[in-house]
Amino acid sequence: MLESLKQQVCQANLDLVKHGLVTLTWGNVSGFDADTQRIVIKPSGVSYDAMSSEQMVVVDLDGNVVEGNLNPSSDTATHILLYKHFPGVGGITHTHSTYATMFAQARCEIPCFGTTHADHFMGPVPVTRPLTPEEVDQGYEHYTGQVIVDRFASLDPAAMPAVLAAGHAPFTWGKTPADSVKNAVALEAVAHMAMGTRTLNPTAPLLEEHVLNKHYQRKHGPNATYGQR
Amino acid sequence: MLESLKQQVCQANLDLVKHGLVTLTWGNVSGFDADTQRIVIKPSGVSYDAMSSEQMVVVDLDGNVVEGNLNPSSDTATHILLYKHFPGVGGITHTHSTYATMFAQARCEIPCFGTTHADHFMGPVPVTRPLTPEEVDQGYEHYTGQVIVDRFASLDPAAMPAVLAAGHAPFTWGKTPADSVKNAVALEAVAHMAMGTRTLNPTAPLLEEHVLNKHYQRKHGPNATYGQR
Amino acid sequence: MLESLKQQVCQANLDLVKHGLVTLTWGNVSGFDADTQRIVIKPSGVSYDAMSSEQMVVVDLDGNVVEGNLNPSSDTATHILLYKHFPGVGGITHTHSTYATMFAQARCEIPCFGTTHADHFMGPVPVTRPLTPEEVDQGYEHYTGQVIVDRFASLDPAAMPAVLAAGHAPFTWGKTPADSVKNAVALEAVAHMAMGTRTLNPTAPLLEEHVLNKHYQRKHGPNATYGQR
Amino acid sequence: MLESLKQQVCQANLDLVKHGLVTLTWGNVSGFDADTQRIVIKPSGVSYDAMSSEQMVVVDLDGNVVEGNLNPSSDTATHILLYKHFPGVGGITHTHSTYATMFAQARCEIPCFGTTHADHFMGPVPVTRPLTPEEVDQGYEHYTGQVIVDRFASLDPAAMPAVLAAGHAPFTWGKTPADSVKNAVALEAVAHMAMGTRTLNPTAPLLEEHVLNKHYQRKHGPNATYGQR
Repeated sequence: MLESLKQQVCQANLDLVKHGLVTLTWGNVSGFDADTQRIVIKPSGVSYDAMSSEQMVVVDLDGNVVEGNLNPSSDTATHILLYKHFPGVGGITHTHSTYATMFAQARCEIPCFGTTHADHFMGPVPVTRPLTPEEVDQGYEHYTGQVIVDRFASLDPAAMPAVLAAGHAPFTWGKTPADSVKNAVALEAVAHMAMGTRTLNPTAPLLEEHVLNKHYQRKHGPNATYGQR
Repeated sequence: MLESLKQQVCQANLDLVKHGLVTLTWGNVSGFDADTQRIVIKPSGVSYDAMSSEQMVVVDLDGNVVEGNLNPSSDTATHILLYKHFPGVGGITHTHSTYATMFAQARCEIPCFGTTHADHFMGPVPVTRPLTPEEVDQGYEHYTGQVIVDRFASLDPAAMPAVLAAGHAPFTWGKTPADSVKNAVALEAVAHMAMGTRTLNPTAPLLEEHVLNKHYQRKHGPNATYGQR
Repeated sequence: MLESLKQQVCQANLDLVKHGLVTLTWGNVSGFDADTQRIVIKPSGVSYDAMSSEQMVVVDLDGNVVEGNLNPSSDTATHILLYKHFPGVGGITHTHSTYATMFAQARCEIPCFGTTHADHFMGPVPVTRPLTPEEVDQGYEHYTGQVIVDRFASLDPAAMPAVLAAGHAPFTWGKTPADSVKNAVALEAVAHMAMGTRTLNPTAPLLEEHVLNKHYQRKHGPNATYGQR
Repeated sequence: MLESLKQQVCQANLDLVKHGLVTLTWGNVSGFDADTQRIVIKPSGVSYDAMSSEQMVVVDLDGNVVEGNLNPSSDTATHILLYKHFPGVGGITHTHSTYATMFAQARCEIPCFGTTHADHFMGPVPVTRPLTPEEVDQGYEHYTGQVIVDRFASLDPAAMPAVLAAGHAPFTWGKTPADSVKNAVALEAVAHMAMGTRTLNPTAPLLEEHVLNKHYQRKHGPNATYGQR
């Protein structure tokens, strides 16, 4: 079942490696099938060198393994919570990519300093609050998702498809697994550039609001002009 | 028509990837044919993985597509303005390369700290002013070119084949598409080195004027001695 | 003899190159066979380009070459001391990897800023004291090991499989040669991220103790849930 | 003539690319044949993609081309001066490698913070003084060599096979062209590490003298123990 989604998810996981976002096995991509309400996700701790679509694990929204012989990613409960709360999301990517993780560890949002950022993220990329000891105890991966959902109380996940889990690392999402990988790639580039921008000029101005809006709409608005349509 | 230029432009776009200047699809190279007054440019948002010269789009100086089935780069209007105002330019490259973009976002010109810089750029690489809300509204890509042209009121584009669009990213140019790519490569290297130079020594001296002149002339002057002639 | 271990050690040395941890010949991995009390180690100063398992050198715990035509790594005496004092260790890796070496040269421990760190190292990665002139005189490589052992007087090498030799570079270990390489890869990533974290936020908080414990136990505790079991 | 040296020089130039020390055509390696007092050097501004040993240019110590159809490197006069003044040197490498060039531009010597440095360079890597306008006028490349020779008035080029030309970039040397490339690789790594060390700890101590001596002697002294002998 879900053969096409399994292939997409497997390819998306391999693309993480191609884009240099993964060290060892630190990363995972999942996809969501709205019709069957099933999630396809990378197995836990499996090497990327011989990954195949048959290894992908199918789970339901309660976290039960529906198909597959391997354990699903240890971050599965986080993915589940995000799919439940972010309508329209069809793919989620989690990495420990170097520069985005630096911001997550520094507990600093990524300010929007330029159009590269504005092309993908409508404003500063937010950071969650840290988890309490009780939350870690009662369900670490579940609450990792919950603090993301809490952080998005007044944010639109379609316009801000990324978050930094404090002291941890980034999560990104999109309409498809491939989209969520693209946003992970963009986030890492944007984090690297933001860090250098602050080093060069500690009082660098944020990108002007009218340019931020223009760039975001150029790629994502109803009258988008970027790409082939 | 313009088959040779299409091949040059396609190859120049692929060379951007080879030199590590492009993430996802953030970059484009165009070429200008002075005889026909036509521009050949990369299509918008197309993946580099399967790019071919037949996909290149031919436009005229009014921005009309003269040949090609794909939409031209969303930055086409910027390229057009530069070709109109910078005589002798036969190729333009736009990237969001990491270090040059950091300077663009920090709104800092790139100071000339060494001979690597002097070999390609006669002085500090300038930054434009930001666009006004009105300019963004009336023609974002056109005015992105206009503020570059304004910035070069007292600069020679032949001696300074690069600019940083404030809050955006670099543009470079040259006699051919390949030349403009070379300048994009040089700009990125020079930006990285300048950033590190300032980190090591916040009061690092600029390259002595007589060495700057010597190096630039060695490569570009009428009595250039560099390379094979 | 020890053919399988020779192959593991050779492959582990080649993996150092694959992971970008080695410049020129600066790095070595060894393995320990508890049954025979023999160490298999890379030969000294040999290029990685044509390395084969037959070149690996077998030494005993007194440092005598038991098998092999080449000189063992110049760091052999350090490896021996660690195997003698750290029970259960089956592989040791020494590199001069860029970011971990920066911390070793700066004589700064690597603070635990995030879960990437916690997944591999239970707390800050320690630094040794420098060697005295007498120690350098009497047995430089031996005392390089001794100051590591001294530093671990109150540390568990199983929970902290890495150390920074002051003014020198990192050593990591694990149950197998491959495990020690994994820890070297993790250490380099963690060092890079820690450096950026401090740059972004000089007062960045350490990872909360309860999250550190959770992540470490998730991967290494008796009830570990990470990976396939 | 000098076929073997031409092959060594060609290979050494290609190795610069393999080690990531060269952008575009910014780099050159030469070799010196003491018997014939001839220098073999890379041609000027030639692409590395199709470089062959037949393209290497043979010049004498007065700078006359003795063999070859291409112009020699524009830095030939610098190489000549170094061969004339540094006895025993059989190969010279010039690059604009990123981190070493940052130090050259910052006009900062590279302090010896660790054993990686000590394995190759006996103390801080020196910087030249800048050239005067008269020197640039009268013979830029010649005086680039002269200020290096001046800087080494009280330094032993065998123990310190590297220099930073102020506002320019590094030169390294060795017994053979390959040796000079190895030193260029080591210099770049050491520069990167030194920069990070200072960032982490602005008051990082220099490597203790007794360890510096030990490491250098271990690799280079009459009783060297490193490698296969």
